[in-house]
Amino acid sequence: MIVALSGGVGGAKLSWGLERSLANEELAVIVNTGDDFILHGLYIAPDLDTVMYTLADLANPATGWGIANDTFHALAMLERYGQPVWFQLGDRDLAIHLARTNLLRQQRLTEVTATLAQALGVRSRILPMSDQRVETRILTPDGELAFQDYFVRRRQQDLVHGVRFQGAEQATLSPEVLAALAQARLIVFCPSNPIISIGPILAVPEMHAAIASAQARKVAVSPIIAGQAVKGPLVAMMQGLGLEPSAPGVARLYADLVDSFILDQQDAHLAPQIAALGLKVTATNTLMSDHSRRRHLAEVVLAQA
Amino acid sequence: MIVALSGGVGGAKLSWGLERSLANEELAVIVNTGDDFILHGLYIAPDLDTVMYTLADLANPATGWGIANDTFHALAMLERYGQPVWFQLGDRDLAIHLARTNLLRQQRLTEVTATLAQALGVRSRILPMSDQRVETRILTPDGELAFQDYFVRRRQQDLVHGVRFQGAEQATLSPEVLAALAQARLIVFCPSNPIISIGPILAVPEMHAAIASAQARKVAVSPIIAGQAVKGPLVAMMQGLGLEPSAPGVARLYADLVDSFILDQQDAHLAPQIAALGLKVTATNTLMSDHSRRRHLAEVVLAQA
Repeated sequence: MIVALSGGVGGAKLSWGLERSLANEELAVIVNTGDDFILHGLYIAPDLDTVMYTLADLANPATGWGIANDTFHALAMLERYGQPVWFQLGDRDLAIHLARTNLLRQQRLTEVTATLAQALGVRSRILPMSDQRVETRILTPDGELAFQDYFVRRRQQDLVHGVRFQGAEQATLSPEVLAALAQARLIVFCPSNPIISIGPILAVPEMHAAIASAQARKVAVSPIIAGQAVKGPLVAMMQGLGLEPSAPGVARLYADLVDSFILDQQDAHLAPQIAALGLKVTATNTLMSDHSRRRHLAEVVLAQA
Repeated sequence: MIVALSGGVGGAKLSWGLERSLANEELAVIVNTGDDFILHGLYIAPDLDTVMYTLADLANPATGWGIANDTFHALAMLERYGQPVWFQLGDRDLAIHLARTNLLRQQRLTEVTATLAQALGVRSRILPMSDQRVETRILTPDGELAFQDYFVRRRQQDLVHGVRFQGAEQATLSPEVLAALAQARLIVFCPSNPIISIGPILAVPEMHAAIASAQARKVAVSPIIAGQAVKGPLVAMMQGLGLEPSAPGVARLYADLVDSFILDQQDAHLAPQIAALGLKVTATNTLMSDHSRRRHLAEVVLAQA
C-alpha cells in the first residue's frame, strides 16, 4: 500500500501518476477536507472532487478542477435568481454535490466518497482526512475569512497573517485512514500547498501522530520551483506567515515527519540546505505538465520506498 | 384583478393567454402545490415551475414542462452515482430547485415564488395555494402512493381508487391569496385536472370557503374534449373514481362553486346537461394548440366577467 496526502490539483496529478505506475499495489489518497463548504445547500468538497475527477480521467485539463467540456447552464440560471455564483459549478459537476449531500444524510463522508469514486471507475481508495468537519480559516487584515471566501470569492488577494483549522483538535481518523497508514510502505506528501492543503491534514493531532509513528518511508515533493508555486497563492502566503517561499522553506515544515525530499532540478543548488535538515534529497523534473511527466515524478517518488 | 386556479401545463397555457389578453389589469395565478416533493434534497414544485416557465416564455413547447432546449448533463451524472433519475431534471431547470430550496430556509413559499417569478420577468402574481405542505396521495390497488410516485415514476399506470390531500385540512391561505380572491372580479378554473390539480386547491377548506364567498364571477373550462383529456390520466382517473369522464362530469364537480362553464365546441351537444346544473354554458374551441388559440380561449373566458 502506498499512501498519498493530497490537496487539489497538484496532489491529484501526482496521485494519478502513482496510480498508473503501480501494478498490483494499491494507492490510498488521504485528501484535505478543510476547504469543504456548503453552498446552495450542497456539501462541496473541492479537493475530493479534483482527486476523483483526475483519477477518473474526467478532469478539465485547462483548470485542473471541474469536469472537462462541462456546461454552465444551471449556474447561469442561478445567477438570474440572484444566487451566489462566485464558485463555478458546471452542470456535470453539480451532480456530485447533489449526490454527496444526499448520501451524507445516511453515511459517513468516507463511505459516500467510496460510493462516488467507485461510480466514476476510480480504482484507488480516496479517503477524506476525517469524517468530522475541519474548517480552514484564513486570518487577514480584514479579519478571519472562511476558506472559499478567501480562495475563490476574494481571489486570494488578502494578505495572510495566519491560518487555523477549526475542528482539527477534535477530529478523529476514520478506520479506513488508520488502516491505510498502518499498511503503508511509503507515505507521499504530494506537491500541494503545505499550509492550506497538507496543513489541515497534519493539523489533526491523531493524523500527525499516526504518520509520525507509521513504519512507512515518508517522502515530500516540493510544490515550489525556482521560488514560484506551480499554482495558487503559496508564495505570498508563506511570506505573509514569515516563512521562506522556497523548497528548503517547505522542507523545514515537513522535516519532523519525512525521510526524503524531492525538489525540482532547477533548485538542485538548494539541496544542501535540505540535506542539512537530515533528509535524503533528490532533484528531478517535478513539473507535471503532461501525463508522461506525472509518471516520471511518480517513479522517482516510488523509488524512495 | 383576475384570478386563475391552475395545475401544470393546461392551466399554464390559459394563464399565459389571460396575461397577454389583459391590458392594465393584473392576473394572479393560484397554483396547486399538492404535487410538490423532495428529491435529491431539493424542494421541487412542478406546477409552480410550469406556470412560471410558461409565463416567462421559457417553457419547452414539446412537453409543456421544463425549459426549452435544456440539457441533461447533471442528470446523466446523477444516474452514474446511482441516484434516482425517474424525474427529469434539466440543467437549466435544476437551478430553480436549488434556489427555491435555499430561499425556503428563510422565507415562505409565496415569498420565494415571488422572487423567482420576478427574476424570470413574469409580470403576473404566481401564488402557491398555501404556504403549508399539502401532499396529494393516490390510493391504488397496490396501496397509497405519493403523487410523483404515481404520476412520474409509475407513469400513471395504476388504477386510482381514491385521492386524498394530506395536510389540506390544516392548511391556511396566505395573505396574498386572500387578497387576490378578495379583489378578483373573475375567478377562472383553468382546464387542469379537476381531481389532482384543481382538487388539492379546493381541498383546503379555507380556500373553498373563500372562493365560494368571493364576489367575483366564477368560470370553469373543461379539460375534457370529446371524452378525451388533452393531457394526462384524467379519463382513467375519473372512471376509477366512478365519475363520468366528460365535460358534464367535470361541470358536476364544480357546480357548487362556478357560475359559468366553457366546453369545447365538439361537445356543444352536451351543453344542456351542464345548463341543467344551473350554469351558463359557452362552447368554443378550447384546444390551446398555439399562441393565438390560447388568446382566443382567454378572451372567451374574460367575456364571462
